[in-house]
Amino acid sequence: MAFTPATREQRFVLDHIVRIGDLADTERFAAASDDVVDAVLEGVGQFAAGEWAPLNRAGDTVGAKWTERGVVMPDGFAQAYKDYVEGGWGTIGVDEAWGGQGLPFAIQTAVLDTLGSANMGFALCPTLTVGAIEALAHHGSPEQQALYLPHLATGEWTGTMNLTEPQAGSDVGALRATATPLGDGKWSIKGTKIYISFGDHDMAPNIVHLVLARTPGAPAGTRGISLFLVPKYRLNADGTPGDFNDVRVISIEHKMGLHASPTCVLSFGDNDDCVGELIGAELGGIRAMFTMMNNARLNVGLQGVQVAEGATQGAVAYALDRVQSARAGSPDKAPVRIVEHPDVRRMLMRMKAQTQAARALVYYAAGQVDRANMGDAAARNRLEIMTPLAKAHGTDLGNEVASLGIQVFGGMGYVEETGAAQYFRDARITPIYEGTNGIQAADLVGRKLALDNGGAFATLIADIRAETTDTGLIALVDACDAIGRRLATADADDKLAASYPFLTMLSVATCGWLMERQGRIAAEGSDDFSAMKTATARFYLDQIVPEAMGLKAAATASAAILYAISPEAFAA
Amino acid sequence: MAFTPATREQRFVLDHIVRIGDLADTERFAAASDDVVDAVLEGVGQFAAGEWAPLNRAGDTVGAKWTERGVVMPDGFAQAYKDYVEGGWGTIGVDEAWGGQGLPFAIQTAVLDTLGSANMGFALCPTLTVGAIEALAHHGSPEQQALYLPHLATGEWTGTMNLTEPQAGSDVGALRATATPLGDGKWSIKGTKIYISFGDHDMAPNIVHLVLARTPGAPAGTRGISLFLVPKYRLNADGTPGDFNDVRVISIEHKMGLHASPTCVLSFGDNDDCVGELIGAELGGIRAMFTMMNNARLNVGLQGVQVAEGATQGAVAYALDRVQSARAGSPDKAPVRIVEHPDVRRMLMRMKAQTQAARALVYYAAGQVDRANMGDAAARNRLEIMTPLAKAHGTDLGNEVASLGIQVFGGMGYVEETGAAQYFRDARITPIYEGTNGIQAADLVGRKLALDNGGAFATLIADIRAETTDTGLIALVDACDAIGRRLATADADDKLAASYPFLTMLSVATCGWLMERQGRIAAEGSDDFSAMKTATARFYLDQIVPEAMGLKAAATASAAILYAISPEAFAA
Repeated sequence: MAFTPATREQRFVLDHIVRIGDLADTERFAAASDDVVDAVLEGVGQFAAGEWAPLNRAGDTVGAKWTERGVVMPDGFAQAYKDYVEGGWGTIGVDEAWGGQGLPFAIQTAVLDTLGSANMGFALCPTLTVGAIEALAHHGSPEQQALYLPHLATGEWTGTMNLTEPQAGSDVGALRATATPLGDGKWSIKGTKIYISFGDHDMAPNIVHLVLARTPGAPAGTRGISLFLVPKYRLNADGTPGDFNDVRVISIEHKMGLHASPTCVLSFGDNDDCVGELIGAELGGIRAMFTMMNNARLNVGLQGVQVAEGATQGAVAYALDRVQSARAGSPDKAPVRIVEHPDVRRMLMRMKAQTQAARALVYYAAGQVDRANMGDAAARNRLEIMTPLAKAHGTDLGNEVASLGIQVFGGMGYVEETGAAQYFRDARITPIYEGTNGIQAADLVGRKLALDNGGAFATLIADIRAETTDTGLIALVDACDAIGRRLATADADDKLAASYPFLTMLSVATCGWLMERQGRIAAEGSDDFSAMKTATARFYLDQIVPEAMGLKAAATASAAILYAISPEAFAA
Repeated sequence: MAFTPATREQRFVLDHIVRIGDLADTERFAAASDDVVDAVLEGVGQFAAGEWAPLNRAGDTVGAKWTERGVVMPDGFAQAYKDYVEGGWGTIGVDEAWGGQGLPFAIQTAVLDTLGSANMGFALCPTLTVGAIEALAHHGSPEQQALYLPHLATGEWTGTMNLTEPQAGSDVGALRATATPLGDGKWSIKGTKIYISFGDHDMAPNIVHLVLARTPGAPAGTRGISLFLVPKYRLNADGTPGDFNDVRVISIEHKMGLHASPTCVLSFGDNDDCVGELIGAELGGIRAMFTMMNNARLNVGLQGVQVAEGATQGAVAYALDRVQSARAGSPDKAPVRIVEHPDVRRMLMRMKAQTQAARALVYYAAGQVDRANMGDAAARNRLEIMTPLAKAHGTDLGNEVASLGIQVFGGMGYVEETGAAQYFRDARITPIYEGTNGIQAADLVGRKLALDNGGAFATLIADIRAETTDTGLIALVDACDAIGRRLATADADDKLAASYPFLTMLSVATCGWLMERQGRIAAEGSDDFSAMKTATARFYLDQIVPEAMGLKAAATASAAILYAISPEAFAA
């Protein structure tokens, strides 16, 4: 499918949801002028459409391949990655101190949005590098930062996150990888990690693994975890990659989708020759991990936007082209383009509205990252509460839109050649990794509702109330307010039983708020884009917001019904 | 994954939803005694678990393969199919006159449910044969019936339905295949058909294609269509398969799932040597097609049940086995089986409830087939209104449950080896074929609401009202009643714009009715099964019924918002 960068939509959301102008008015982000933002959006759009989108299908059909020499990417990926590095697209959001451009995280979000809409599996590689940069920038030593960050900033070297082990999935604290002091300040790393995205590939001269492991005598659980920097190749004295560091890729997973992204099983220290450096303090791993994961969660929410954008573009193009059946109730019996049929329009309108809602939600959260980074405590709280919403609801919407995309294509959607199925398969991992959406919901009701004594939640509710004039949205916000306050003090089981429906309600309330604002502003315009934005906002408020109210019963139910039967009775 | 036939659940639904006892009290179905029903359910359960379930994964990973000699099934399928034929499982619902057992369609539904839960792609083959049997039994000549039905009844020969052409998907009337009289009462068939499930394979000595084509001078559109019987091999004088009938399989589709089912492109009459016989009257094709498709639609709804059953069994088994994380809020910090975590229980409870709801809906409709076949006009009307609900909502639920199944597995669900992904991929075709779910919704609001001057709809509403005591369900039924009466006379665009959300509401109301009854009856029992049924019914009424109320806004919206923008604005 041809990919057209959503440049105008991105600019609109940056202007009115991120309020990028306010950021550009600060000293820190003065570089984010209108001209620069436009140049970045257009430049990455051209690059992604020209070089990455054409590789999307080969990424799926050929996929990354495991060989004895390591993982080999499909033809064209190495060159396209090189061009990404040379184009400077990796440096957008990185601090100038490390060779970055120091632009807002929100701009970097827009760049990753475009790259991932063109080729989601490929874009996961730079997304992971961003996580490694964040961890090193916040917790690395000056030496580590100097040696590694400039290479990570450009993307010349890529980064990975090594958390999961077979017995330690959602329960990170159960991990068993070990780090033993070598006496010279360095550590010998040993263990097996699974689900390591881009854990190996042939596009970069070095790969920087960030590895969670236990040091000798460390307490059990998450408090006993430390974070280590473990390069694939140790650095020479001049900082160039040198000796192999005993990090082996044992296999890659055979996944339903996202085939361009090699999901590796990595073995560290098979020959007792894997050397790592501590990042931050010993036993400080969980804190460093959260630094790395929080933005990673936003970036996974962004993958929901990416897949929704791609699937919507494909479905719209097909519906504008495919002729089938006369319009019902029309005196004209000639077949029409399927976009003319009401139920197809309903699907397309929903796809457009949900894609925009997801984008607004994730970009809004990204804008809070920038404000929080400048020390804005309110923005920090807002970011905290937005993160589970952006991750979970953003990815849920990506899945919904990808499924609608198949439906618009009909039988053709189920045949792989059209590409609609790829979006659907690619999307399905996003509600799982970086903390399942159930874990996001637990985070929302467990930690985020309690944040600032409930203040973080209360100010979100207040902000929505202050701006909306839509009666449906007001009803939803009122319901969220009451449920959220009740859940904050509910017993653990009741809280968790209601967490997912509540997360959806609060996400829709937030999206409704941001969509209503966009609709109000778009209504001032008169072209197709403005008309489309006005209509999708109206549709969202009139049809999607009331749907979320249907979750109220589930969000106010206790856990009793779930525990009314024994575990074994589920198999009856 | 190990497959356990849902024998007890099937028996429960046959007893209390189909009310199979009432059928067994009739002369026609006197054979459907308790003992026979139990023997059939247990027998097919053993057969499916022992022979078909073990082939499910090879059906996916190896799949049906196109070769120059025709389609080749994976190893083991031919033998397992032979055993199906010899076991008599194809004959269950076929009239005794054709060598069948003359048992109710509802029992045949249970048999296909079990076969498809074990191996959905494989079970599509007998499902299609059922359609061919129906068409011939209702519209074939005595000679055709005598020659073909006994072989189709056993499944020795298999059947196909040939409707779709590249330009004629949902718009069947646009087809171009031709039939030209040969002068001896037979016809020369010419044309290309696509999406022909089991259009070729190596498991049977003959394949009976039912082909829609146009005769010379036939009017345009659906009124110009006739149905033809076109065997792969012409019959010898003694009725055995003889000369090749010039039906070639050109290719099979590369689909996202359902790989065990070869989706063929068939070319008829490449060498002008394809001979067909008219089934029924010339130009009577569309009527015959509907005979064939109506039950096929129920059988596709049943595929939703099959995939939901398989996915649920897999997720429950995993959740009962996988140990991860301590229970939140518990003083005991030891990790527990994930079934103990509230959000996992919520997912499992939802999977169980939705699977049972889908099964009740489809079996209920199947029971109406049997009553309608005995001349019960009310049952005929009920069947008419149930068919789009069973097809669309049954398949929607299959997809929802398969997606939840992946989520319960977490990262393992995205890796193909666990099988959770296969259910998800297999399920996605079901809302598309046999009339997309959008077309089902159009059928509901366009034809079925008007049936019997609205009487078919009104009696459904009345029956639900007469039995339910649940306030949430009463509210939903009231809403459906008001919306249905309004839509019956609405303008075409408004009707269609609201059709899908309305279909979902009415489906949930119907499922709620059938679930409430099951819960009431199950509450009299005291074992795990009864407790489970009581809990899922309660969960359905308390949480899923209110969700459907959230669709009220969409089901009462006009089409105006969808047409507020130009088609091209969807690409803006």
